[in-house]
Amino acid sequence: MFSAKRVLPFLLKSTNSLRQQNRFLSAEAKPAPWPRKVFSGVQPTGALHIGNYLGAVKRWVELQEAGEDVTYCIVDLHSMTIPPDPDTLRHNTLQMTATLLACGIDPARATLFLQSAVPQHAELSWILGCLTTMARLTHLPQYKEKSANMKEIPLGLYLYPVLQAADIMLYKATHVPVGEDQIQQLQLAQSLARAFNNKYGRTFPFCETLVNDGSRLKSLRDPSKKMSKSDPDPKSCIMLIDPADVVLEKVKKSVTDFRSEVTFDAKERPGVSNLITIHSLVSGKPVEEICREAVGKNTGQYKLLVAEALIEHLRPIRERMERYTRDVGYLADVIEEGSERARAIAEQTIDEVKEKIGVDGLRAGRRRRNVRQES
Amino acid sequence: MFSAKRVLPFLLKSTNSLRQQNRFLSAEAKPAPWPRKVFSGVQPTGALHIGNYLGAVKRWVELQEAGEDVTYCIVDLHSMTIPPDPDTLRHNTLQMTATLLACGIDPARATLFLQSAVPQHAELSWILGCLTTMARLTHLPQYKEKSANMKEIPLGLYLYPVLQAADIMLYKATHVPVGEDQIQQLQLAQSLARAFNNKYGRTFPFCETLVNDGSRLKSLRDPSKKMSKSDPDPKSCIMLIDPADVVLEKVKKSVTDFRSEVTFDAKERPGVSNLITIHSLVSGKPVEEICREAVGKNTGQYKLLVAEALIEHLRPIRERMERYTRDVGYLADVIEEGSERARAIAEQTIDEVKEKIGVDGLRAGRRRRNVRQES
Repeated sequence: MFSAKRVLPFLLKSTNSLRQQNRFLSAEAKPAPWPRKVFSGVQPTGALHIGNYLGAVKRWVELQEAGEDVTYCIVDLHSMTIPPDPDTLRHNTLQMTATLLACGIDPARATLFLQSAVPQHAELSWILGCLTTMARLTHLPQYKEKSANMKEIPLGLYLYPVLQAADIMLYKATHVPVGEDQIQQLQLAQSLARAFNNKYGRTFPFCETLVNDGSRLKSLRDPSKKMSKSDPDPKSCIMLIDPADVVLEKVKKSVTDFRSEVTFDAKERPGVSNLITIHSLVSGKPVEEICREAVGKNTGQYKLLVAEALIEHLRPIRERMERYTRDVGYLADVIEEGSERARAIAEQTIDEVKEKIGVDGLRAGRRRRNVRQES
Repeated sequence: MFSAKRVLPFLLKSTNSLRQQNRFLSAEAKPAPWPRKVFSGVQPTGALHIGNYLGAVKRWVELQEAGEDVTYCIVDLHSMTIPPDPDTLRHNTLQMTATLLACGIDPARATLFLQSAVPQHAELSWILGCLTTMARLTHLPQYKEKSANMKEIPLGLYLYPVLQAADIMLYKATHVPVGEDQIQQLQLAQSLARAFNNKYGRTFPFCETLVNDGSRLKSLRDPSKKMSKSDPDPKSCIMLIDPADVVLEKVKKSVTDFRSEVTFDAKERPGVSNLITIHSLVSGKPVEEICREAVGKNTGQYKLLVAEALIEHLRPIRERMERYTRDVGYLADVIEEGSERARAIAEQTIDEVKEKIGVDGLRAGRRRRNVRQES
């Protein structure tokens, strides 16, 4: 009898050689796979809380650290869907730039840029919009949910998933880190890529979602709710810029339950489990290890541990954030350079798109003229 | 007693001096009037018929000849609302350029350009879209009419009035030549200008429509209908590129009525009145003069006169059109130069808009940095 260990390599080998054969046979039919490319965007909403950070931005940094080709966009045009005060928007945009850099986004390895500085987002959005129907947008769950209680629905609220699809497709992203609530939104980008490719030939990859591992943090005051900046109780939510004493106070005051031991059970014990999740994310230790180390401690003692780990993790971020916000010129430089890099790619894509859909009369004429002059 | 002639200048003078006083009193409150600027657009639909020419393009040329500041746009992005075949769109764009030049648009005096070559149209369209509601667009009569019998309504059909508003506003146009059916469409541009100015300060003029003088030509075969390229009977419609013998044939076969004299009565005698309108527009003679000259002629004899006048008017246009369509390089040059000029203005407007709405974090940062370095 063969051991599984000895059989498996053989099986893998045959599968591989079969695949190679297939590749050989259909060399012309099968195009090269799309290069792996990560894209994600964040609205310039001002200060972030640790839920935004641990659930999204930290993941962005990890993808950058893993050597992925990453492009991150501050989507200020999306903020216009419900037009904010201009000075607030301006301030929040710089604040978000400082925050992302402080969290570890490295402009040398990540393309960090401003959506409004790349006109091709709006251009592609118009073109993609012409490939979909009104019904398609009306059926998106986020639209249904947000517009349900509105008398007058702002057009931007209805249209922004098309701009979001353009954001992703402009960079031919293959992987898009998103929250769970955005998966269906991404399906519009996927179906628009399919529609465009079917009509005009292979142009856009089918983007896959990298769903953040369900680590949506809960309110510290009511663990049945999400952690949210707009919660009226400021103690429900820890901001990235909260100083150490405030973090300690908020963790100490966090609602757990009547049992004193530290165990993880997100359903039955959401309060203490939320603290364990935070602890695990900032320390990098698995939940099991944390629970093991907490044996013998009560939740009151454990809270001090969590607060300490969180404070240690946030300290360098907060220090960098303070330094960056003082250097607006540097932030502008970073965004300008990133936007230039983004624009170079966006221009390539939009040129390709325009040629394929036939709105390049001008350039087509020029090409033909060059041919004529050469002959 | 004073004669009216002597009183009037006095009255006029007092009114003027009152106005001047007012101007003086409110010097700070009243901004300078917007410089008069004409903008209009045409879809690259391929060949034009004489209805398009006499009703719109001829008017464009007259405004140019009158020394107005005129900007004319081939709106290829609007063609995408129902995406055409790319090669057809490309061909039609060049064809439309040739046609407009042949009709008398002079690229030295008019800015003639391609919408897709100026990314700011799509950018401003997104921004303006965020200032309106879904209901506002749903109530536009052209949308209601066109979507009435559709099962799946293309998103572009719903959105294009916003892009149209952006087209006009990007050049701060004060006067927009349009057909009667587009007046309500223009009201969206007017209300978006008002909304933007109210929210962000005086930025856009209130554009007025220059309605084409009701000279919508009728079908030659059924004068109760509009002349239309899509009419299944090709004899119903005279194309700009129709050769002389075809024009003669179509005019001869045109439907009039049982009376033989030549009189103008658009309601009771639409057929012969349509011919008189064509005759008046191509000859520049008033309808009354034409009717006077036609006294004693029957409609059969009169048709020959109309055909002759039309053929003479169209001959140089057709000749130029043939010459231009052979020189694709020249057409590309014209469009490229025009688009560059348009882009320079569009960039100014979009920069102003972005600064006002607060999506210029980058430039704001740069400015602040410059201030810091200077101090």
